[in-house]
Amino acid sequence: MDHRSLRRRVFDLLERDVPGDRLADVIHFGLIAVVVVSVVIAVLGTVPSLGLRDGIAFGAIEHACLAVFVVEYLMRLWVAPEHPLRRGMPAWKASVAYAFTPFAVIDLLAIVPLAGSLFGSYELHGLLVLRLMRFLKLARYSSGFNALFLAIRRERYALFSCLLILASGVLTAATLMYLVERDMQPDQFGSIPAAMWWAITTLTTVGYGDVVPVTALGRVIGGITMVSGLVMLALPIAIIATSFSQVIAQHNFVVTLSMVSRLAPFTDLDPKALGALMPVLHSRSFDRGHLVVRKGEKTGHLYVVLEGYVEVEHPDGVERLGPGGVFGVAPGAGMEHLTVRAASKAKVLVIEENELHTLMARHPVVVARLSGMVFPKTGA
Amino acid sequence: MDHRSLRRRVFDLLERDVPGDRLADVIHFGLIAVVVVSVVIAVLGTVPSLGLRDGIAFGAIEHACLAVFVVEYLMRLWVAPEHPLRRGMPAWKASVAYAFTPFAVIDLLAIVPLAGSLFGSYELHGLLVLRLMRFLKLARYSSGFNALFLAIRRERYALFSCLLILASGVLTAATLMYLVERDMQPDQFGSIPAAMWWAITTLTTVGYGDVVPVTALGRVIGGITMVSGLVMLALPIAIIATSFSQVIAQHNFVVTLSMVSRLAPFTDLDPKALGALMPVLHSRSFDRGHLVVRKGEKTGHLYVVLEGYVEVEHPDGVERLGPGGVFGVAPGAGMEHLTVRAASKAKVLVIEENELHTLMARHPVVVARLSGMVFPKTGA
Amino acid sequence: MDHRSLRRRVFDLLERDVPGDRLADVIHFGLIAVVVVSVVIAVLGTVPSLGLRDGIAFGAIEHACLAVFVVEYLMRLWVAPEHPLRRGMPAWKASVAYAFTPFAVIDLLAIVPLAGSLFGSYELHGLLVLRLMRFLKLARYSSGFNALFLAIRRERYALFSCLLILASGVLTAATLMYLVERDMQPDQFGSIPAAMWWAITTLTTVGYGDVVPVTALGRVIGGITMVSGLVMLALPIAIIATSFSQVIAQHNFVVTLSMVSRLAPFTDLDPKALGALMPVLHSRSFDRGHLVVRKGEKTGHLYVVLEGYVEVEHPDGVERLGPGGVFGVAPGAGMEHLTVRAASKAKVLVIEENELHTLMARHPVVVARLSGMVFPKTGA
Amino acid sequence: MDHRSLRRRVFDLLERDVPGDRLADVIHFGLIAVVVVSVVIAVLGTVPSLGLRDGIAFGAIEHACLAVFVVEYLMRLWVAPEHPLRRGMPAWKASVAYAFTPFAVIDLLAIVPLAGSLFGSYELHGLLVLRLMRFLKLARYSSGFNALFLAIRRERYALFSCLLILASGVLTAATLMYLVERDMQPDQFGSIPAAMWWAITTLTTVGYGDVVPVTALGRVIGGITMVSGLVMLALPIAIIATSFSQVIAQHNFVVTLSMVSRLAPFTDLDPKALGALMPVLHSRSFDRGHLVVRKGEKTGHLYVVLEGYVEVEHPDGVERLGPGGVFGVAPGAGMEHLTVRAASKAKVLVIEENELHTLMARHPVVVARLSGMVFPKTGA
Repeated sequence: MDHRSLRRRVFDLLERDVPGDRLADVIHFGLIAVVVVSVVIAVLGTVPSLGLRDGIAFGAIEHACLAVFVVEYLMRLWVAPEHPLRRGMPAWKASVAYAFTPFAVIDLLAIVPLAGSLFGSYELHGLLVLRLMRFLKLARYSSGFNALFLAIRRERYALFSCLLILASGVLTAATLMYLVERDMQPDQFGSIPAAMWWAITTLTTVGYGDVVPVTALGRVIGGITMVSGLVMLALPIAIIATSFSQVIAQHNFVVTLSMVSRLAPFTDLDPKALGALMPVLHSRSFDRGHLVVRKGEKTGHLYVVLEGYVEVEHPDGVERLGPGGVFGVAPGAGMEHLTVRAASKAKVLVIEENELHTLMARHPVVVARLSGMVFPKTGA
Repeated sequence: MDHRSLRRRVFDLLERDVPGDRLADVIHFGLIAVVVVSVVIAVLGTVPSLGLRDGIAFGAIEHACLAVFVVEYLMRLWVAPEHPLRRGMPAWKASVAYAFTPFAVIDLLAIVPLAGSLFGSYELHGLLVLRLMRFLKLARYSSGFNALFLAIRRERYALFSCLLILASGVLTAATLMYLVERDMQPDQFGSIPAAMWWAITTLTTVGYGDVVPVTALGRVIGGITMVSGLVMLALPIAIIATSFSQVIAQHNFVVTLSMVSRLAPFTDLDPKALGALMPVLHSRSFDRGHLVVRKGEKTGHLYVVLEGYVEVEHPDGVERLGPGGVFGVAPGAGMEHLTVRAASKAKVLVIEENELHTLMARHPVVVARLSGMVFPKTGA
Repeated sequence: MDHRSLRRRVFDLLERDVPGDRLADVIHFGLIAVVVVSVVIAVLGTVPSLGLRDGIAFGAIEHACLAVFVVEYLMRLWVAPEHPLRRGMPAWKASVAYAFTPFAVIDLLAIVPLAGSLFGSYELHGLLVLRLMRFLKLARYSSGFNALFLAIRRERYALFSCLLILASGVLTAATLMYLVERDMQPDQFGSIPAAMWWAITTLTTVGYGDVVPVTALGRVIGGITMVSGLVMLALPIAIIATSFSQVIAQHNFVVTLSMVSRLAPFTDLDPKALGALMPVLHSRSFDRGHLVVRKGEKTGHLYVVLEGYVEVEHPDGVERLGPGGVFGVAPGAGMEHLTVRAASKAKVLVIEENELHTLMARHPVVVARLSGMVFPKTGA
Repeated sequence: MDHRSLRRRVFDLLERDVPGDRLADVIHFGLIAVVVVSVVIAVLGTVPSLGLRDGIAFGAIEHACLAVFVVEYLMRLWVAPEHPLRRGMPAWKASVAYAFTPFAVIDLLAIVPLAGSLFGSYELHGLLVLRLMRFLKLARYSSGFNALFLAIRRERYALFSCLLILASGVLTAATLMYLVERDMQPDQFGSIPAAMWWAITTLTTVGYGDVVPVTALGRVIGGITMVSGLVMLALPIAIIATSFSQVIAQHNFVVTLSMVSRLAPFTDLDPKALGALMPVLHSRSFDRGHLVVRKGEKTGHLYVVLEGYVEVEHPDGVERLGPGGVFGVAPGAGMEHLTVRAASKAKVLVIEENELHTLMARHPVVVARLSGMVFPKTGA
């Protein structure tokens, strides 16, 4: 195996997006296990009574984990040119570009404690935080983190408003309590920042009870604060819940750039067009026999098969489409007479009608190509 | 009454799915009462001041409950061959097969304390847990447990993501607090696991108050943790709420295999086909006069009447269908001209169009039979 | 004014369902004020430091409130025959029938303390509860209580399942904690009922902190309990939230029997038919200009105007309907060509298509009458 | 620049609704910064250990903020006649009218501490509250406050019912606990108001733990109270969540009167008509290429372009509309054959069909004008 094909193979193993690759699965779960072990060790290492830090095993495991992370980091740097987004870059440039992505930075931080370990300053607590931040390496493998991040970003303005409302609630409650209880409990309510600790504890319904009002008026203010707290509680629940459900509904599995770049319609797209395409691809999976498109549906979405097979039933017969197959409408044509059904467990990428027009305005080449491949052909 | 018909009768009594059987109702609520009494006795038995364990009544009730459970367990083993899923098995094989079902295992665990009781080791606390696990016997009778279980299973990936997010929140909050408050409160925040207790307490908004930050910086971190806790709270509420509502909407009463196996279309199906059919049957109940199918509806669902009567209004007249009656469409035909209305309080099983196609791919015989029975006949 | 018309007038004043009656409004808010004063007095009377019970004013207000309640109760008994549900009954029978309705029982309980007051046993604490139960008298005037009650009743099975799940969660958590922490904290976890106090406190996320686990294993179990608590929290929120929203959407103002019995189509209905009609009447209010029925709508609901005016636009012109006007379809006819718009702020009663059929099966006379009054006439 | 045009320029700078005005942005964020600094200073000034009040910087910053607020207040008074709502008023009348708007009152309160400062009575705590109320000045800039306020107002009756239910829950729980625990804990449960503190703490799931039941019966009542608390929690979440989501969906950006009064169709409307128009204008923003109106949509809404461009595709060609362009239907005409698509990032104002009719009844002139401008022309 020459250098290029070896690098390709290592890339596929690390990305794990060729379905059914056993070795990639082993590496995937192996790396997760190493992260978990490393974090658990770091957490338990802070318990004095366990005395773990003095044991030989503790240092050995820590160093073994570090070694795995270093090897993983170097590997990922090496295979960076294989990533579809960095196609055609010189190898060194691709590695540098990769090194500045968020995941690469997390990976780098995860191996910084190595330096501390080499130079003996093991007790530095800053390093402890870095060792625990290894937990963030799992984000790479979790679609949940991804969905939460997207959900929060989509509703960032509404959530910021919530924070503002919460802040003004905390400020108001703290000021009133400061005025009322200042003289009774100078330790707890002697200043507004001190009273704010009580206010945030109460408004979030945590209620530690280390600071509580004791006067009648203070308790009345406290009661009103609690009831307002229920409203504070309701706002982010309303926003996050709606947004999180929608994000999960729109993307029911994670699609990566390297999966998409393997499909026939996208193999030779330049990185910029691919980058523009990714956010408009929604993912849907269908069980065998389930309807992808119901007869008479009027939405002009475009569909690309990612895995499995679908059967397109049209007036002239039935067509079977596999991975890379495109169906739906070229802009302007209708598909009212089509029924599309999953012929096996299938994963399908959807570009919604609205997004299709936005894409067409910015990357007409991509849309033109998809329209050329679409099944069934429209027009004469 | 011969042995077979007696066994059949006992089976019907224990399963209680022939509507209107008074004796079955008595046995049903009797068994529930015994479970509740047994659990209450076990709980109260741990209160030293009541001194219940020394009383004669206590032992008598405990033994009586045990006796009921033993008899019930043996009965259920004996009637196991009557279960439609085990049709045609030899009796001993059916009993063994039954003994490994989850409900049978729970029933067995419920009578294990018998052994302890026989050999005098009454005080074993492991046995106490087993006696309390009898509460799980109620799961057999509760559609709520069932719905919660289904709701959680449907969204297990999303909930796992929530757990991961919660875990990383706990880890981050605990690490920061450990670094900040370690020296001020070595007992409470002297190690990360200790700080994690504070973090989980705060993020779930439980807030015991046994461990609270005292420094200004610690309180700022605490405040941020509480606000993040509101988001943590919102995620599972969003997921569970949606999923639980949908599960309840899809199954508004519990259907058991033995109910289904009594209906004409399914009487002689082999256990494997029955097993494939069960999860695609959704249950709906309708009040007298309510619409089951509205004129002009386009979804190609298939319906089987379970209880009561429906009236199918079609261009050629009105047809009345009773239990076992099938209506809807054979795949390919339309029912746009039908109105179906409940003629009495009716329970109807629905197979959705999507599921129908999946079923057709795997068990064409079942679908063919249903299509043959469907009313109204389509085609010439 | 003779006796009958006086009784009618008092009935209208107490029921307050003739819109725009000023005196009825004064009586309405006056009675609410008396209830609030009476309850506040009873609450403050328990504070020893205020010494209210010794004051003359306290007794005077209490007796004045009592007098109002007695007069109100006797009045309501006297006017009971005017209620449409008791039409045609002899006066004494109507009063007795009324005396057994829930609201009449609450009113009676509110005046029981009178007896205590007369016979000097003022300190009886049972009487205190009765005096506070006067708060329930407000339920008569609040549509919110009504909606919550309906929402809970609609989902009573699902909520019961939640309670069962909560009970098993409490039982499991308490048993595990009892086994783990029994020896460390015999006072707090010395028996399962004691541990259940901790479990319910934790699962509902109240978290007093009076009882907390101290062992490492206990804290792990505590953490799992808290996270399960979030799921427990999500279940009733999901159920109540959905149900409460739907109830409020279906009934956006309160309709009383006496309002309905004033409308032309219902004036001479017998009480039994009226009673069957009430639960199927949904209330909707519309602003001037808003659409009641959109052109092309296919649902066969029946509408009765309660207050204000609507304009029915049909192919032959525009018809204006006032209170008591009926529009929609007689069963079997279509209204696809109608647009109905509120010509002023209007309140409309809706009988949904499904309910209409149920009603037709049980009270064909009512449906026949409504069909005869419906506008526009269908058929030749 | 003469006086009038200078006043106009200052008005535009302060209102910041001409898109792309850099100086207005600087002033906007500068004023926000001054408010935040002023509030932070007031909060920190209450911490005795910081000793901020004695420093020179503290007084200097406080006075500088005050100066800014005074200048801002006077400016806003001066430019008041430029506001479209006060068109045609004499300048002094417009300023007086402005001075009584809520925002102007808040601004005035924010500068009242000036008086205290001038006359040396710096320590007055009432003034502290006023200084903190400056936080409310931010409400002017936040669409979130606005949305929450609208959401709460829309559901004020339902929320009031929640409060009533909560109040009766608190009253019931407190009375029962008072009767049960009064003799065991006279300090905590010695009167009903004292017990109400425990009840509100528990029902909102805050759970401080400063007051807890200790008897077995008290704990049973406590457990029931907690479970009821979950229902109390669910009610406002259900109501606020639904309402807040809808408000945000209907208004996805803030529209001000001065924005609207700049559009061609509204430039010369009298203030009264403008005031009637504002609440029926819903705001929607669309990305380039996204559909504003889908072909075949039947709702008769009216649309006015606020920013950007849309393309109206109709049978006779494509028309491009910019700010002030009106499309949709004049009442009575259909637009079923139209597709409207955003040709750039566009902000559009929508008047819904229902509101349009209400508006027509009250301000026929406004609707007539809009109908005259609507594109495409309907009729011959």
